[in-house]
Amino acid sequence: MAWDPALETAFHPKVVAMVGISSNAQPGMRRGPGGANFITSYEQLGFKGRIHPVNPKATEIMGRKAYPTVTSIPEAVDLVVVSVPAQALPEVLEDCITANAKNIHVFTAGFEETGEEERIELGHRVREIAERGGLRIIGPNCMGLYVPEARIGSFDRLPTESGPVAFISQSGGHLNWFSHYGQNYGIRFSKAISFGNAYVIDSTDYLEYLATDPETRIICMYLEGVKDGRKLLRQVRAINRTKPVILWKAGLTEDGTRAVASHTASLAGQEAIWRGFFTQTGAVPVESLEEMAEMAMTLLYVKEPPGKRVSVIGLGGGTSVASADVCNREGLDVPALTVETQTELKKFIPIAGSSVRNPLDTGLVFRNIDDLQREVELVTTDPNIDMLIMRPHLDMVSSGNSEDASKVIDYLVNICRNNPHGKPVVLVFHSFSNDPQEFELRSRLQVELPCKGIPVYYSLNAACRALFRLYEYYRLQKELAAEKGIMP
Amino acid sequence: MAWDPALETAFHPKVVAMVGISSNAQPGMRRGPGGANFITSYEQLGFKGRIHPVNPKATEIMGRKAYPTVTSIPEAVDLVVVSVPAQALPEVLEDCITANAKNIHVFTAGFEETGEEERIELGHRVREIAERGGLRIIGPNCMGLYVPEARIGSFDRLPTESGPVAFISQSGGHLNWFSHYGQNYGIRFSKAISFGNAYVIDSTDYLEYLATDPETRIICMYLEGVKDGRKLLRQVRAINRTKPVILWKAGLTEDGTRAVASHTASLAGQEAIWRGFFTQTGAVPVESLEEMAEMAMTLLYVKEPPGKRVSVIGLGGGTSVASADVCNREGLDVPALTVETQTELKKFIPIAGSSVRNPLDTGLVFRNIDDLQREVELVTTDPNIDMLIMRPHLDMVSSGNSEDASKVIDYLVNICRNNPHGKPVVLVFHSFSNDPQEFELRSRLQVELPCKGIPVYYSLNAACRALFRLYEYYRLQKELAAEKGIMP
Repeated sequence: MAWDPALETAFHPKVVAMVGISSNAQPGMRRGPGGANFITSYEQLGFKGRIHPVNPKATEIMGRKAYPTVTSIPEAVDLVVVSVPAQALPEVLEDCITANAKNIHVFTAGFEETGEEERIELGHRVREIAERGGLRIIGPNCMGLYVPEARIGSFDRLPTESGPVAFISQSGGHLNWFSHYGQNYGIRFSKAISFGNAYVIDSTDYLEYLATDPETRIICMYLEGVKDGRKLLRQVRAINRTKPVILWKAGLTEDGTRAVASHTASLAGQEAIWRGFFTQTGAVPVESLEEMAEMAMTLLYVKEPPGKRVSVIGLGGGTSVASADVCNREGLDVPALTVETQTELKKFIPIAGSSVRNPLDTGLVFRNIDDLQREVELVTTDPNIDMLIMRPHLDMVSSGNSEDASKVIDYLVNICRNNPHGKPVVLVFHSFSNDPQEFELRSRLQVELPCKGIPVYYSLNAACRALFRLYEYYRLQKELAAEKGIMP
Repeated sequence: MAWDPALETAFHPKVVAMVGISSNAQPGMRRGPGGANFITSYEQLGFKGRIHPVNPKATEIMGRKAYPTVTSIPEAVDLVVVSVPAQALPEVLEDCITANAKNIHVFTAGFEETGEEERIELGHRVREIAERGGLRIIGPNCMGLYVPEARIGSFDRLPTESGPVAFISQSGGHLNWFSHYGQNYGIRFSKAISFGNAYVIDSTDYLEYLATDPETRIICMYLEGVKDGRKLLRQVRAINRTKPVILWKAGLTEDGTRAVASHTASLAGQEAIWRGFFTQTGAVPVESLEEMAEMAMTLLYVKEPPGKRVSVIGLGGGTSVASADVCNREGLDVPALTVETQTELKKFIPIAGSSVRNPLDTGLVFRNIDDLQREVELVTTDPNIDMLIMRPHLDMVSSGNSEDASKVIDYLVNICRNNPHGKPVVLVFHSFSNDPQEFELRSRLQVELPCKGIPVYYSLNAACRALFRLYEYYRLQKELAAEKGIMP
């Protein structure tokens, strides 16, 4: 369907009907009969509007007056959340048409994804009813909308804080996990949408909405299948210029394609076609939730790097070799520092047991704030270097004087937040220790710092992967801007 | 040099001379002047032999009588640990020759790896002296030996327990981290060797020793360069038949090669040559410490799988798709279960919102021990399946009745330890929650279970990678055994 501004109502409902909540449901119930968890989740988020349970067999559900039908609700309904069994869905939709309630989140599953004939047939009927009634169905087989600002969402303990990242997901589980897990990467959400089998509204419709949504700056997508690939390509290509689009296209392997059929009954498409999609749109490809979170954090908190030549500062010769291998494999270059920089570094770095070429094996600087500042200044002004990965060993930082340690961490935070020479600086803590204190410190910093806008990665691979994709994002933007004739 | 049974003395010394400990060193000192940390580490491990500090400017060091030279020590010295500055090394070695002390661990760095002319020259002199005196030099530029049984080692808080895994490492840092970190994977060590620039004893000499060492069942290696590649190939090919060899060959990228020169001044070699090495020897390739640990754990605790067709049991349709993609990309197949198995599963798994094809999206079974047992039994007896990856969501396991949860975990542990149908079963906890209790549970199980011999992986990628390599290890063994004429 074409974009309908009325979708705005679905994202910011004031009146919500919940159809299919069991008459046995108790307040606060999270599991068990019917869709009690939807009411519980909305309440937990602090939803300010009105929720009307619908069940012909009850007069009160979870402390609220229950209505036999949507039509019998004595006010206009902005959003209907449906969790009845699949066989009962057609009747509920007819009721919605009568009630003139157009926005329907259908949680109900069990259609063509089961592969069973009668359920495929049922799906066809549902589509027909929706089309006839002009219903904007979100789903079926999905967890619907999470909008922190509107205080709506379908999962337990969702964050209430809003932010600039949107997520369009063809998996409810991914939406749940990313909404929670994203916090560890400093990610807050404007809107997140689980849209399942996409009978009526497809990913491209949500994209169209988010393209002009002033609260959304970055768009993440998890897609299994797409109805109109050309439309998606045109859209992403246009949107990606101003709002980076991070896309996880799943089901590209042989067995993944089969798994997609069992999940959302989508056609997954071929890997080669999707490779072309990324080149032509400049969207950022990722392959897991972790990569999606890393990439969103990177686009939020790391500026455009001038190039892809990286310097790594860490401890240990073996670690330096591994660092160079990892950077190269992820597409980054690790050139030697200039002779001038090396000469300056040798003035305060001992020659035996260290290396000042690049990667820098000078871990001891993490115990001395003056040497650390001097080294970072030299490396970030080196003309051979575009960005810097700091890889402090937490036992080096934490085992010294604790006042020094906090100075070192403060300095690292500041240089990551704002390097005066305009070259990105990011952090990867190196820690293989079983020491409980060190483990606690790492776990704490790993979450606290991204929340303050400091890019911290769980591994060097993760950092390199994200930085290379960041570089590629900006490079492709320029390349696409320079092209002519294929503009949408 | 050819293998010398006297190396045994170095691994189990009774008398150790420590040359280069500062006269200011205090008992328990871990950092600071000279090689105090060597004495501290040996003491911490509970070394039962005698340690004699050597320093011409002191009469007592760290509570022990100090000797001016090795020669002046009034008993035969089994091992000398040298941490003097590079320029002083020749004189110390001459002293060792006079004292007839042949096993020398040279910590001292600052030779050809610095790239400086006079230090390269100094390295040549050291080699000449060692050859003339028949010295078995371990190093220089290395952390030497860690032997839990002999209670010797050069790092802080090394585990004292012995085990069947040996580690030959051209990086001291890697040895340190792997020795600690390996504990989280249920790995204990027989011998670990950091051998640095390998002036005299090279990786092949240590291999020769470990090949016949009855305490060693699995050999891990981190190599930057090799002196005699053909010899290494012959050795690994032969040893790998009875003791799996896990090899991390670092420095194979362009920048990695340069980093190797700065670290141990080795020639790193070309990627294509090393690819051939792995095919011809059947050794298991890894690319990081994490992968090495995963692989050692897998070879220790997972039996030979009958094939590479895997089933994954988890929760969530999106997760199922991602699982299939990951398995395929790592080389495993995820075939559909037989129609018979699917029919049996459908008898107790609801059709809507689940999938019983493969991957199995049946997360609710992790809340019901009877269903779980029934499902695992069906899947592991399915003729299409060779191994099983269990991917329980910790919030599913932990949020139910705690007695049920512990039953589920006990069952999972048992089925991983010993599946009656001879098909490997492994665990990957799925957890994206910020819930502190869940985080604590995961962290605890992630370490506790491998210590009990249960293969638990940090991610599905890690599990698939390790299982595919395990399959490949056995497959190549058979292929190589069937070949004729190229036997060593």
